[in-house]
Amino acid sequence: MQFQRRGEAGQEIPVVIHDGVIRDLRPLTSDITPDFIATTNSSEVLSHAHKLPELADAESLRIGAPISRPGAVYCVGMNYAKHAAEGGAEPPENVVIFFKPPHTLAGPNDDIILGPGFTKVDWEVELAIIVGKTAWQLTSQDNPLEYIFGFALANDLSDRYWQLEVSGGQWSKGKSGPGFLPLGPSIVPASEVSPNSLQLRSWVNGEPRQDSNTEDMIFSVEQIMRDLSQFTVLEAGDIILTGTPEGVALSGRFPYLDAGDEVSMSIDGLGHQTQRVSRQS
Amino acid sequence: MQFQRRGEAGQEIPVVIHDGVIRDLRPLTSDITPDFIATTNSSEVLSHAHKLPELADAESLRIGAPISRPGAVYCVGMNYAKHAAEGGAEPPENVVIFFKPPHTLAGPNDDIILGPGFTKVDWEVELAIIVGKTAWQLTSQDNPLEYIFGFALANDLSDRYWQLEVSGGQWSKGKSGPGFLPLGPSIVPASEVSPNSLQLRSWVNGEPRQDSNTEDMIFSVEQIMRDLSQFTVLEAGDIILTGTPEGVALSGRFPYLDAGDEVSMSIDGLGHQTQRVSRQS
Repeated sequence: MQFQRRGEAGQEIPVVIHDGVIRDLRPLTSDITPDFIATTNSSEVLSHAHKLPELADAESLRIGAPISRPGAVYCVGMNYAKHAAEGGAEPPENVVIFFKPPHTLAGPNDDIILGPGFTKVDWEVELAIIVGKTAWQLTSQDNPLEYIFGFALANDLSDRYWQLEVSGGQWSKGKSGPGFLPLGPSIVPASEVSPNSLQLRSWVNGEPRQDSNTEDMIFSVEQIMRDLSQFTVLEAGDIILTGTPEGVALSGRFPYLDAGDEVSMSIDGLGHQTQRVSRQS
Repeated sequence: MQFQRRGEAGQEIPVVIHDGVIRDLRPLTSDITPDFIATTNSSEVLSHAHKLPELADAESLRIGAPISRPGAVYCVGMNYAKHAAEGGAEPPENVVIFFKPPHTLAGPNDDIILGPGFTKVDWEVELAIIVGKTAWQLTSQDNPLEYIFGFALANDLSDRYWQLEVSGGQWSKGKSGPGFLPLGPSIVPASEVSPNSLQLRSWVNGEPRQDSNTEDMIFSVEQIMRDLSQFTVLEAGDIILTGTPEGVALSGRFPYLDAGDEVSMSIDGLGHQTQRVSRQS
């Protein structure tokens, strides 16, 4: 089962995809929001799915981000040892956190339109956690997976000029450009995902860039949930990006993105994204 | 004129205060939200204020944060040279940005309730900008003040253990505890504030801690608006904390906060806050 939002930006229709049929979720909710996620058990949606109407012409509709405005987007930095090394850093001893503003959310195949001053734009394929319910100071007795609604594919777009050269060392400045968080196509319920053994891949203009597995993460999905909940309150609909593996332009092995480039990425079971890069006219 | 939200947490009533009278804003809006701010001209509210009903028993009601959930809370770090120095850092050459998650918003006089693991909690009095409309790549021809709805008093509560000792250098981890952003009591419209010449003060248990002026900011309100809009899209209702002056516990001159302490702060024309500190039971 997959949750998606289909239609033009700002007018997306919530859908659920089951057995290859795209069904209209509007009999259950007007949109996929943090409130919907807080009150929804995905297995109940599944048991009702056959009663939902098929959405006409759904295949022809744009795919939007699979959730509307979350309360917060947390990002884990340097969570793959070889990616830390390609950026010139040691693997971290503790989970490293920065933020993206939620307005950066974009559809998985929307164009990346770079404004003036965006000169070192880099791709980062990542597994995104969609938090399912409030989590505060989880203990070793708690199962962090019970606090997760689902998982999605994300591109944590990053401008290394803003992130590293004029940031005073605080990374969020380079993570906040418009459209800098292509998410989706889908949220797949947590019960259908083995989050710590997923292959992640990215390509630029068809050439391979990243090809790793979430089993290489320094901090697992469970550790990330438990650690974040020690210092902040995780809420339904919050997004947590779990870090990117090696193979980005920051390594110096590949050029940064520019107009005309095409970025693709995939995670096993979570789908595929393709974005075309252009410059703001 | 001041905008406030009065009532129990989660049930606040929007009010406007003019000539000392607290009037119910609900004939105009159900709440003070980013959408309300995006569509509201405060001088129009003022011209209608005398027609709004007085709110009965308003003085006895709790004061909430003066805006409900903003899209993002941006924070400027080390924007006062002496504060940078007391933390052992040089003044920054560029605006330094980190984030707080919006769920940290609290009423200006709500208790600060520290969970286990919060051991180095520090106060930071700051001038908060409330963004009034979308700002993207403002130029020298634009007047940044036209993009500001108003200003408020904020306490950027910070746990230095999470911020500095187990953060890998990314500060947001120590800025994200529950209730870590007491805001208000009021939003004062931008037209009534001279933001670059305001005295900011804080006290702990009645003893002076911070006493500086926004004229000492390294980056002015106008510079902050222009700079942030270069790398992200500022939206109506977004909050920008503009940095704190010297006189915090991080300096080593004062103890960190603990149960039983009382924190107070004020900014000229923007009001006063008092929080009592306790430990989660």
